[in-house]
Amino acid sequence: MSIYRLGHIEVRVPDLELAAAYYTEVLGLIEVARQGDHVYLKGWDEHDHHSVILTYAPRYGVEHIAWKCDNINDLEKYENKLEKYGCHVERIPAGQELAMGDGLRFETPSGHVMELYHEMEKVGNGLPKLNPPPVRDDLVGIAPPRLDHTLLLAENVGDAGRFMMEALDFRMTEQLVSGEGHQLIVFLERSHTPHDVAFATGTDGGFHHMAFLLDNWMEVGQAADTLTMNGIEIDIGPTRHGLTRGHTIYFFDPCGNRNEVFSGGYYVDPDFEPITWTEDQFGKALFYYEGKINEQFINRHT
Amino acid sequence: MSIYRLGHIEVRVPDLELAAAYYTEVLGLIEVARQGDHVYLKGWDEHDHHSVILTYAPRYGVEHIAWKCDNINDLEKYENKLEKYGCHVERIPAGQELAMGDGLRFETPSGHVMELYHEMEKVGNGLPKLNPPPVRDDLVGIAPPRLDHTLLLAENVGDAGRFMMEALDFRMTEQLVSGEGHQLIVFLERSHTPHDVAFATGTDGGFHHMAFLLDNWMEVGQAADTLTMNGIEIDIGPTRHGLTRGHTIYFFDPCGNRNEVFSGGYYVDPDFEPITWTEDQFGKALFYYEGKINEQFINRHT
Amino acid sequence: MSIYRLGHIEVRVPDLELAAAYYTEVLGLIEVARQGDHVYLKGWDEHDHHSVILTYAPRYGVEHIAWKCDNINDLEKYENKLEKYGCHVERIPAGQELAMGDGLRFETPSGHVMELYHEMEKVGNGLPKLNPPPVRDDLVGIAPPRLDHTLLLAENVGDAGRFMMEALDFRMTEQLVSGEGHQLIVFLERSHTPHDVAFATGTDGGFHHMAFLLDNWMEVGQAADTLTMNGIEIDIGPTRHGLTRGHTIYFFDPCGNRNEVFSGGYYVDPDFEPITWTEDQFGKALFYYEGKINEQFINRHT
Amino acid sequence: MSIYRLGHIEVRVPDLELAAAYYTEVLGLIEVARQGDHVYLKGWDEHDHHSVILTYAPRYGVEHIAWKCDNINDLEKYENKLEKYGCHVERIPAGQELAMGDGLRFETPSGHVMELYHEMEKVGNGLPKLNPPPVRDDLVGIAPPRLDHTLLLAENVGDAGRFMMEALDFRMTEQLVSGEGHQLIVFLERSHTPHDVAFATGTDGGFHHMAFLLDNWMEVGQAADTLTMNGIEIDIGPTRHGLTRGHTIYFFDPCGNRNEVFSGGYYVDPDFEPITWTEDQFGKALFYYEGKINEQFINRHT
Repeated sequence: MSIYRLGHIEVRVPDLELAAAYYTEVLGLIEVARQGDHVYLKGWDEHDHHSVILTYAPRYGVEHIAWKCDNINDLEKYENKLEKYGCHVERIPAGQELAMGDGLRFETPSGHVMELYHEMEKVGNGLPKLNPPPVRDDLVGIAPPRLDHTLLLAENVGDAGRFMMEALDFRMTEQLVSGEGHQLIVFLERSHTPHDVAFATGTDGGFHHMAFLLDNWMEVGQAADTLTMNGIEIDIGPTRHGLTRGHTIYFFDPCGNRNEVFSGGYYVDPDFEPITWTEDQFGKALFYYEGKINEQFINRHT
Repeated sequence: MSIYRLGHIEVRVPDLELAAAYYTEVLGLIEVARQGDHVYLKGWDEHDHHSVILTYAPRYGVEHIAWKCDNINDLEKYENKLEKYGCHVERIPAGQELAMGDGLRFETPSGHVMELYHEMEKVGNGLPKLNPPPVRDDLVGIAPPRLDHTLLLAENVGDAGRFMMEALDFRMTEQLVSGEGHQLIVFLERSHTPHDVAFATGTDGGFHHMAFLLDNWMEVGQAADTLTMNGIEIDIGPTRHGLTRGHTIYFFDPCGNRNEVFSGGYYVDPDFEPITWTEDQFGKALFYYEGKINEQFINRHT
Repeated sequence: MSIYRLGHIEVRVPDLELAAAYYTEVLGLIEVARQGDHVYLKGWDEHDHHSVILTYAPRYGVEHIAWKCDNINDLEKYENKLEKYGCHVERIPAGQELAMGDGLRFETPSGHVMELYHEMEKVGNGLPKLNPPPVRDDLVGIAPPRLDHTLLLAENVGDAGRFMMEALDFRMTEQLVSGEGHQLIVFLERSHTPHDVAFATGTDGGFHHMAFLLDNWMEVGQAADTLTMNGIEIDIGPTRHGLTRGHTIYFFDPCGNRNEVFSGGYYVDPDFEPITWTEDQFGKALFYYEGKINEQFINRHT
Repeated sequence: MSIYRLGHIEVRVPDLELAAAYYTEVLGLIEVARQGDHVYLKGWDEHDHHSVILTYAPRYGVEHIAWKCDNINDLEKYENKLEKYGCHVERIPAGQELAMGDGLRFETPSGHVMELYHEMEKVGNGLPKLNPPPVRDDLVGIAPPRLDHTLLLAENVGDAGRFMMEALDFRMTEQLVSGEGHQLIVFLERSHTPHDVAFATGTDGGFHHMAFLLDNWMEVGQAADTLTMNGIEIDIGPTRHGLTRGHTIYFFDPCGNRNEVFSGGYYVDPDFEPITWTEDQFGKALFYYEGKINEQFINRHT
């Protein structure tokens, strides 16, 4: 019984129409619902109601990150663990958030609002449950099948990671450590992949990016074509990470939230011995081919 | 707490030297150890000591299938569940099987010997834990990173599947159902993939194949080159499954055990609503492009 | 001065509407014009007016194959060579065939009607000539960029090839030779690729297939999805040829004409020493992975 | 009768051993011969004796660029055309250059030494001419099948291009034009590809890079892994060109000569209407995804 994957992310956008147009037509998510100041989206191969919520707000950034649990009883287990850790935990009654069952809401020591839930209304992936074809032929834009992970910022990365491990049972897969032995970046997982969430050194509550899954390097290349032909600003990529081994492109939604398409990674056992990167390999750790970091990647976030 | 993936498979080979040469040089597994009548192998990106055991025996086929558990306490939990189900369960003391901790051994109603265990000695994936490169450049043959799944035979597929679900917490992802409503094939998972094990109609105790993971269709094509250039008999493929959506090639080790390379599939939530294939779509369900089944695929096994 | 590539092919279709729908929506050619009983089509990245003509006729098959020449003076050169070879050559005045300049028409000893021409109206590839993007994002179906080659049948393959070489300056790249030393298949080129035309043993005047180019094995796989999801009958593939090394799928238009998507091959110098396949390797020569030939591939043609 | 492709390039290297190790082990060319201060190399799928000559010299750069002609009589034709253009043309007797037949040597108005030749000793591609497999399984490093093109520098790009077109029958495919209407870059071909040679604005006699062919974007990505794991400095990429549409990585041999791996492009008819890029799109023209140019790419050459 436990958290088993990233459920959904709510991001703030100052222009809801513009953002919705980008997320559906260029990134190629499926729009599932609109309600008030919210647009609900999902990757085409997700069955749950949504994995991304766009919410109108004057300034871009992340509103909350939500984790999916195996079992309804996980909520009580985590409520106890979180309160023991000193968190104030709020119960979210079923239906308060569109399509979502009972949940918990709390703020992490790093200043991020997180939620846990077990149930969400299923809307399916658009393929029949009887004799389905292997692909949909009506997708537009990049059309990633799923949301994959998020990178958040914290002043004290060590503390941020420890909280996720101790209160929420996350496991560390990789870390980048300074010459003095401080963690500058930590990668954490529940889904047997290199990361469901990562923390990098920065302002508490900061949001670096959310990443969408692609199948392979070929699709990463095609995504770069789609982005460029639609006039989307690419931050960096196509390239490869040292951390996670993944292939990647970073780019910005029209409101300033950074997106990533990510492909690859590796399988992680629960007893995986973490990988350590040293600060002198910072460049390769982030961008294996370039071996150096563009300043914007470090400094531009919300 | 539960089974979370396929751990290892022990297959019988009448010629241990020939088989070991094929599995290391053509399929490209890593040989980790030899001991008596056994050769221990693993995919290059697996960290545990082994995932395949070749055991000398006069006739090819499967000896046992072993599942990896999250927690040492899972053994007791499953011992109880299995005994309640009417299975005779045998304890395997740590070290009795090379590199493996405490375990359970039992026979399924479908006549397959299975094991559960939590611990196995780690040997690593050949990359350093400090600033690792993303790939190894010393691999030979097809070199799959991991063992993926197995397909077993059972006279009563419905019963075989029910056992895996009720006694071992497996979840059904897909099924192929006869006109009369009987399950002819069931796919079952613990790892959030379309299958860790599947059962097809056949002789109890029968072994159809074990499958190794590849990253994408490009690698599946290269595997076909490697197989053909090494004179390995291809059963069918490269092609695509309707069931699981995976890309595939089936072929035989030199002793007659069927192997598969498999790529693709999709992510499976624990509350995934199973997909059903009807018997009139049997061809497409197995081989989506051909839309029909070669007789050998159905009839040749052990 | 010489023939430098396959220009266009005219095929007969008993149902013009059905054929046009398939060639534009499933194969994904661009329809350029309709005139009387003809539909004119091209691959999206071809600049000439058309490369395929569909012509209404009660029975499927090839009407003519046309070669593009470097220079208008090539027509006279080849008129002389063809007449010396004993062919009756007919002049085609500019404009007699839609969008085509002056040409020659003649029948080969193998009973195929061929044409030579230098000029064809250009319609472009749909991308601007000023600061163009690298791809079109409005394509449907398989959408091959170009027509690639054709395979014709001849009772005497040796004679058919000799004619192409002596009268039309083609060069042989590969041949499949019987145990008695007869040529069963010959591959011939003018474009530095493994083949612009090939002849296999069969009925004089027979048409085996026309092939469209794809970029790589990934696209060949996607073409298999598109074909299957549209209910198109696949003859064989995705697989790889021994001859030419190319990756391939064979399938049929709804009127019975065989199509191929083809990717790969290799660069051919004019002084390339031909490759020879022996009859005992017939299977691998045609289908490298299967190592055997489906009867339909040999026996079904027009 | 004419030039039909880039034949070979002779580059200067201050450390012949170091350069030879890099070109064979990392880039993965085949070493064919060593003689005095020269090492002769070829791409694995080239049949001619060599396509790259490494020559010991105190400073890196290009020594000569050589073009292959269809016919021995082309030499006389081009001798006349070159002399009419005001070039001093020198005859190279057969055998003076290792493995090469009769040739011409001349200096272009842009200060580059070029050669023309028709014959070169064939050494084959390492595959048998009888029933060959489609690939070699003994290659190391990136292992491009062929040399593809070169980019040279000229103070007056317009004049440099005009010379290639008028004296040597090259055709322009693309150009980048300044706001004042001057050509800043021209792409020229004889092989029906986007370029066999290009000129960019710079010092007369300058050498920007030589490029080797890869099959697709997947191989370009793998090349980036190979380069990084071998500590080779990547200049830029993996990325895509606007000019030519090709996928690319630029990097440096250990002596400072820039190399490229290149994949893609498009087919070019002799009557292809050239594409024009405007100076305000310089960034996208060179690096379509980045949309800007790294200074080193422009300023570092020989």
